[in-house]
Amino acid sequence: MDDEPRSLLADKTPFPDDLDARLRAQFTFLVEVDRLKTVLRQSPLAAADRRENDAEHSWHLAMMVAVLAEHADEPVDVGHTVQLVLLHDLVEIYAGDTPLYDGAAGLDQEERGAAAADELFALLPADQTRRMRALWDEFEERRTPEARFAKAMDRLQPLLLNWMARGGTWRTPGVTADDVRARKALIGDASGPLWAAARRLIDEGEARGWSRSAAPGD
Amino acid sequence: MDDEPRSLLADKTPFPDDLDARLRAQFTFLVEVDRLKTVLRQSPLAAADRRENDAEHSWHLAMMVAVLAEHADEPVDVGHTVQLVLLHDLVEIYAGDTPLYDGAAGLDQEERGAAAADELFALLPADQTRRMRALWDEFEERRTPEARFAKAMDRLQPLLLNWMARGGTWRTPGVTADDVRARKALIGDASGPLWAAARRLIDEGEARGWSRSAAPGD
Repeated sequence: MDDEPRSLLADKTPFPDDLDARLRAQFTFLVEVDRLKTVLRQSPLAAADRRENDAEHSWHLAMMVAVLAEHADEPVDVGHTVQLVLLHDLVEIYAGDTPLYDGAAGLDQEERGAAAADELFALLPADQTRRMRALWDEFEERRTPEARFAKAMDRLQPLLLNWMARGGTWRTPGVTADDVRARKALIGDASGPLWAAARRLIDEGEARGWSRSAAPGD
Repeated sequence: MDDEPRSLLADKTPFPDDLDARLRAQFTFLVEVDRLKTVLRQSPLAAADRRENDAEHSWHLAMMVAVLAEHADEPVDVGHTVQLVLLHDLVEIYAGDTPLYDGAAGLDQEERGAAAADELFALLPADQTRRMRALWDEFEERRTPEARFAKAMDRLQPLLLNWMARGGTWRTPGVTADDVRARKALIGDASGPLWAAARRLIDEGEARGWSRSAAPGD
């Protein structure tokens, strides 16, 4: 993190001075999070030849929650789970995206994420700072059925995009089908049927050569 | 609408034949809605020099619901309101975006939207087709506090982006500040404080010349 205070998007066109202070803080945050639309992920879209951004990804997860919640092993509150996925990547506005198959970048991911959460959520009125941080912590800690299901969607969504792309990030150099299975196993913490379907897609992708089978000695 | 059956994204890389039928229908829908990421709106992003797409827009509305729900004149269920905004633009996948200030295009918008909803939601298992359609109808009809608040967010979000762009679509030829006030008045059906703030931004934008004041005889 820099020592310099970060310049905010809202500073470019400041809101009128007489705007209510609480609303000004909320609008400032809501403008700042526009940056999520510019954080690119590794995943290729199914509908166009470009990479996905974090805002699109978060929206897609929320749709998946609404459609797939019935497959959760423990009942989940759909509205609450949707809120978890909507904000789970917000900290990447300041911390950046960490590709799933980049082991080194993952090492300090937690620390960078927490610092980014502190900075971003502090733009809100204090009561909302606490509430957003609690939701973000809930997602990260995966101690509730909702958080486990939200995390499962975060793993399943790029798997569907990789399937559509006939490989996608499964083709990352050095990554094997077993690596994919290991990274996706969190789906099984939330839903037996979805984990079975995910494994079916991973197995079939490996059989078709869209991911690399581990060679002897790997 | 064409008479030819529309080809689906999922047809490009069909799921394995032995996938459970209900899951296959749900995955097919969830892949098809990837198209929302390619439907461009008129609004310019605050964070980058490009237009916004519908998936990003829908995500942004959901964040606004989570942060601004306290300003609703009638209490709203945040989780339910978030679900309304997440799917409110889905039908544009097949019906296209209708710019707010394009009066002619708005005429058959309702009819095209309903036909697109029928086609898109029919990809889901029948019980979910009905549920999604009910949510979409709820948003369109604005008879619940949640639907009115969702609609208010749909009007307020591009207003914030236009403010940041110092005009944005307010500069559309033929559009006056009074047109903007008229199109945004739905915000007032959901929240007095948010409508007051919106009017303040519209008034200030007009004073700064970011929108056109109605000339005598207009």
